[in-house]
Amino acid sequence: MLDDQITRSKVHLRGAKAPTTGRVMTIKVAINGYGTIGKRVADAVACQDDMEIIGVTKTRPAFGCDLAVRKGYPLYCTFDNPEKIAAFAPAGYECHGGLSDLLAVADIVIDCSPGKLGAENKAKYQAAGVKWIFQGGEKHEMTGMSYTSCANHAANLNVEGTRVVSCNTTGLSRTLVPLYEHCGELSVECTMIRRAADPGDSKKGPINAIKPVLKVPSHHGPDVMTVKPEININSLAVAVPTTIMHVHSIVATLPEGHGLTTESVLKMWSNSPRVVIMNGAETGITTTAEVMEFARDMGRTWGDLHEIFVWEDGVKLVGNNLYYFQAIHQESDVIPENIDAIRALMGTESDWQVSVAKTDAAIASLFE
Amino acid sequence: MLDDQITRSKVHLRGAKAPTTGRVMTIKVAINGYGTIGKRVADAVACQDDMEIIGVTKTRPAFGCDLAVRKGYPLYCTFDNPEKIAAFAPAGYECHGGLSDLLAVADIVIDCSPGKLGAENKAKYQAAGVKWIFQGGEKHEMTGMSYTSCANHAANLNVEGTRVVSCNTTGLSRTLVPLYEHCGELSVECTMIRRAADPGDSKKGPINAIKPVLKVPSHHGPDVMTVKPEININSLAVAVPTTIMHVHSIVATLPEGHGLTTESVLKMWSNSPRVVIMNGAETGITTTAEVMEFARDMGRTWGDLHEIFVWEDGVKLVGNNLYYFQAIHQESDVIPENIDAIRALMGTESDWQVSVAKTDAAIASLFE
Amino acid sequence: MLDDQITRSKVHLRGAKAPTTGRVMTIKVAINGYGTIGKRVADAVACQDDMEIIGVTKTRPAFGCDLAVRKGYPLYCTFDNPEKIAAFAPAGYECHGGLSDLLAVADIVIDCSPGKLGAENKAKYQAAGVKWIFQGGEKHEMTGMSYTSCANHAANLNVEGTRVVSCNTTGLSRTLVPLYEHCGELSVECTMIRRAADPGDSKKGPINAIKPVLKVPSHHGPDVMTVKPEININSLAVAVPTTIMHVHSIVATLPEGHGLTTESVLKMWSNSPRVVIMNGAETGITTTAEVMEFARDMGRTWGDLHEIFVWEDGVKLVGNNLYYFQAIHQESDVIPENIDAIRALMGTESDWQVSVAKTDAAIASLFE
Amino acid sequence: MLDDQITRSKVHLRGAKAPTTGRVMTIKVAINGYGTIGKRVADAVACQDDMEIIGVTKTRPAFGCDLAVRKGYPLYCTFDNPEKIAAFAPAGYECHGGLSDLLAVADIVIDCSPGKLGAENKAKYQAAGVKWIFQGGEKHEMTGMSYTSCANHAANLNVEGTRVVSCNTTGLSRTLVPLYEHCGELSVECTMIRRAADPGDSKKGPINAIKPVLKVPSHHGPDVMTVKPEININSLAVAVPTTIMHVHSIVATLPEGHGLTTESVLKMWSNSPRVVIMNGAETGITTTAEVMEFARDMGRTWGDLHEIFVWEDGVKLVGNNLYYFQAIHQESDVIPENIDAIRALMGTESDWQVSVAKTDAAIASLFE
Repeated sequence: MLDDQITRSKVHLRGAKAPTTGRVMTIKVAINGYGTIGKRVADAVACQDDMEIIGVTKTRPAFGCDLAVRKGYPLYCTFDNPEKIAAFAPAGYECHGGLSDLLAVADIVIDCSPGKLGAENKAKYQAAGVKWIFQGGEKHEMTGMSYTSCANHAANLNVEGTRVVSCNTTGLSRTLVPLYEHCGELSVECTMIRRAADPGDSKKGPINAIKPVLKVPSHHGPDVMTVKPEININSLAVAVPTTIMHVHSIVATLPEGHGLTTESVLKMWSNSPRVVIMNGAETGITTTAEVMEFARDMGRTWGDLHEIFVWEDGVKLVGNNLYYFQAIHQESDVIPENIDAIRALMGTESDWQVSVAKTDAAIASLFE
Repeated sequence: MLDDQITRSKVHLRGAKAPTTGRVMTIKVAINGYGTIGKRVADAVACQDDMEIIGVTKTRPAFGCDLAVRKGYPLYCTFDNPEKIAAFAPAGYECHGGLSDLLAVADIVIDCSPGKLGAENKAKYQAAGVKWIFQGGEKHEMTGMSYTSCANHAANLNVEGTRVVSCNTTGLSRTLVPLYEHCGELSVECTMIRRAADPGDSKKGPINAIKPVLKVPSHHGPDVMTVKPEININSLAVAVPTTIMHVHSIVATLPEGHGLTTESVLKMWSNSPRVVIMNGAETGITTTAEVMEFARDMGRTWGDLHEIFVWEDGVKLVGNNLYYFQAIHQESDVIPENIDAIRALMGTESDWQVSVAKTDAAIASLFE
Repeated sequence: MLDDQITRSKVHLRGAKAPTTGRVMTIKVAINGYGTIGKRVADAVACQDDMEIIGVTKTRPAFGCDLAVRKGYPLYCTFDNPEKIAAFAPAGYECHGGLSDLLAVADIVIDCSPGKLGAENKAKYQAAGVKWIFQGGEKHEMTGMSYTSCANHAANLNVEGTRVVSCNTTGLSRTLVPLYEHCGELSVECTMIRRAADPGDSKKGPINAIKPVLKVPSHHGPDVMTVKPEININSLAVAVPTTIMHVHSIVATLPEGHGLTTESVLKMWSNSPRVVIMNGAETGITTTAEVMEFARDMGRTWGDLHEIFVWEDGVKLVGNNLYYFQAIHQESDVIPENIDAIRALMGTESDWQVSVAKTDAAIASLFE
Repeated sequence: MLDDQITRSKVHLRGAKAPTTGRVMTIKVAINGYGTIGKRVADAVACQDDMEIIGVTKTRPAFGCDLAVRKGYPLYCTFDNPEKIAAFAPAGYECHGGLSDLLAVADIVIDCSPGKLGAENKAKYQAAGVKWIFQGGEKHEMTGMSYTSCANHAANLNVEGTRVVSCNTTGLSRTLVPLYEHCGELSVECTMIRRAADPGDSKKGPINAIKPVLKVPSHHGPDVMTVKPEININSLAVAVPTTIMHVHSIVATLPEGHGLTTESVLKMWSNSPRVVIMNGAETGITTTAEVMEFARDMGRTWGDLHEIFVWEDGVKLVGNNLYYFQAIHQESDVIPENIDAIRALMGTESDWQVSVAKTDAAIASLFE
């Protein structure tokens, strides 16, 4: 199959874009920054039948290189500096070149670099003539365009580059966009109770404290407006001593005449992609610990949960105010969004729901 | 002003207690349940010049008895059962009798018992003809009256019994009541990020999770309406793995024409009793860990913080919405409130601000 | 080395199984108690070519049933009570009968029930004429036989039943047995720093405390002597607020003339199955957080780590005292041991190293 | 016993000090670095009748200055730089000069500075002709002398300077020195389970991990040999996600013919200063959370526990091996040691037990 893809991809590269030729071609995806997000996006790309990983970058021959090698992803150096490239071989890793070499063979690059190197990297991507996708750590101002599957796939069709919004913004969009589309307007206050460090990070605290984000309102909620400007939202945020999930505590004020009930809201979300609704009392899933255990049972690599988790018994519509909690797996809810964003930018799938279904089916097939 | 209080208190006391001493008489306070709250209220009572601890109860000759003995508080058994009373002596503690014996010599009892023994205990207190104060663990419906110094001291004057509201409700009242009194109306949404266990409790989890209170809206916020019914408030709550403080994330919607600014709100709170305002960026007090360290520096026993802590740089008025964070020391913010409530019920001080000043000055004098 | 082992295992299988059935026969395995351990053992059994899951039990139609159904494991009720069996159907689960029905079709049962139901269950298994394996939560006195692959596989060949020792005992055996076999004698002191709750458990504390196990010496270390009586070992244990791994802090006193060096010990362990050795300084894996992240990268379901993790730079031989740390994934290090134990009891593989290689290769093949 | 000690101390003071000055002279103590340790030592000095705080230093007009002002301790700048000194006034603090100015009026300086500024500071102290005491963060090699009240008070009499050993070393000395003095020799293995951050520190992790100190054996245990070289000791250390106490898990091997029993060891420690022994099962004090709550009940500022806490039911002598746990309040166990060290260096009290009794009685009198 891989041989097939390579053949097809060669054909593709020779001409402009396979879609016009009337048959399936594979999009060549580069991952710039093979870390927490990069390694997940790479796997999600690799299991799709319309795209492939053409290479991933590491800054130096460090620990994560083993994983890339084991997965069979060609390894490149984040830099074009010959010395840095040469440093991989003595450590036992084959390095296929620098970032420029990788960009030269790619259709699109997913920037998963940790720092705020956005502007600098964007210039490189543009110079190389590849499409580019940044992650939510970068600002909307830098990319000029943002992306969430359910919010603005159409607006991202065929654009040069975009930004897949953060895990929090993605999570808010999953439940708020359907509400907005039903109600026509929406005013939201959200408190984000954030995990203070990722599971693999032993450096950060606090160990026994709550840390409010003293910039109020926080930047988190309003970021939703980069993908759905019509939703009026503010937020407050605190960090707490846990590593596994964020929780959102939300009050969404619906307009008069919204016609919804607690039950109809739950039904709406049940029909929305990438939202899981479960009853805490019935399932015993009453904290993020049990949510993550449920996710581990699902069997995805890293125990990931791409879906937003909503507690059925934690949703209540009181007058026009809808109160609810949702939990966000900060390491992974954006992963499938990157796949959909690739299709949007490459112009290979204009219907977001079709893309979402395709993305999720391919990922699910890995764990059956 | 203080002289005034002493004079007034003399007048009041002249009838009841004058025979004993011919001078300032002290209110005889019983503590039923000498635990986390009881031990703190006892010390706060003992340092006031108009009241004294007449006895404290323990269910059995257990660990906390030593503290009572060391402090010089007469020890009674929570029960009237002769066998249970007799069990103290062999363990080396002098037990002065059962609850009935204690009530017989008390003017007022502060119920700090852990369980929900409210109704049963209330009947005993009424039968003994003493006034009574419950804590926020009991429901308003049982007591029929609730108390917060700044909210409804006057309404509690000379009543038979009341309930000092919970640490959370007390904390909300401290900042919301002044706002309400300025604005005339107030609509509030609050998310409570709660410490999951007290510092001395090693049994409860979670260790690494966030636990939403799935009853939404939660009971916490609306409890404010038991002391200030005019404030319209709802809340959501989560428990997080920390032992030291609750944090409230608050959005208070002010009425049109409120005439306030972020600065004038801060000034209003600076002038409100039992509210501490500090700038996180300037002081380095950016989490509840540093707030509690600040409290430890104050030197009160147990490192208590009776005041509500508001981050100056975490307050912002945006249009009619006031966003702010406050931190609550769950073990102690209600302690001085109990002292004021005693004066309200005994009718010895009708001005809440006078009582608060007297209470706080006596406590402060211990640590100078 | 792995290739070698696989070759040997092929040779072995060709011989060992032909006589019995004329073709490769599969051992029919029942799991009594489909929870944290049960669900993992089931998957490990299912991927072996010489055994299969014939059924798993749940006490009632609760949450975990979905997982069993999704995995395709026939569901049975833990009890034989017809009402309890009948309760599954209305909840949407097909229940194939009670425990007796399951035992009737099984060759061997793996008891993964949570409580200490050992004696009672053993009687049932014996009555049904099936072989049985308990887990480390049960006492050696009840089973009369215990098992660890590297310690006493041969002694367990063809026995009626055994007990796969706890995660801690298993972990100690992995590093101590090779030492013992080299040195001939060994005296060990170990402090176990234990995770206080599993990741999916949000009930247990402590949140901010260290809890010593006040029974000293603790029962943990000496349990090693149930599988290797010649190792002289004592232990102390504390529980700490983490959910992900136990850490052992070990001082092993070697006999005079042991002839070992720090380097030769490391080499010995590198050649021992199910021990992973990595350098903390070089890899950045300096705490159990990074160890578990490394395990998640390996890709096993639940992010499991069947291997014991030893920090290369945390091992030092000083005179006759060998100091080292090792980390234990409490949820999973015993999983492959159960597979080997099945082969021991069924008498289908007498060489522990062959069984280990076969077990691990089958599990690894799932994640390639 | 305490009465005895106090009597002796009175006698001593009457005799010993008269020759020097004709009356009781107070030792003028400077604190260089008014932080976690400095603020505690200052209070402990201030309550003694033979010494006084002559000044404390801060690097800049930051938060802790308020506490010094409130306590009435003259404030100096850590540096002699005129600009840095001048920076205090605009911030509202009276600064009495630089470090040199402070040293000029002091008899002895307690160095509580955070960084490893030892050598540089020592030169300044020597140049100023004052005696000096460093804390356990500095190395023995720099000071050439170390101090623990119960281990080597006599050796520190009238020396120029010393180092009060760390909280861990102090704690080990409290229980090991009495054992050594009884037995004549002692071989000890200790695992230190350390709190990863102090209560007021919200920056450090880990949140959910155990972090072994990969240098093995660790430096902690052998540091005991700087005050009692005859004790043969090694240690291993891990950091865990708690803020409140270290726990030591200890195996002390006694020589043949030690003549001790578990009970006689407990009695020995009961008679040793600054060791508290309590039964976990009887008191419910089963983790460091309850130990710290017990300390808070004692009423010392910051809820400090100067004593080492040993669980009675966590001590067991098995053959020649004594197993036990002890808990260490990392912020405060060294505080009274600094007071005793001052007397040793100033030569005003040659009997360590007299000094200890005097120190502790003065501190206790604050909380009666």
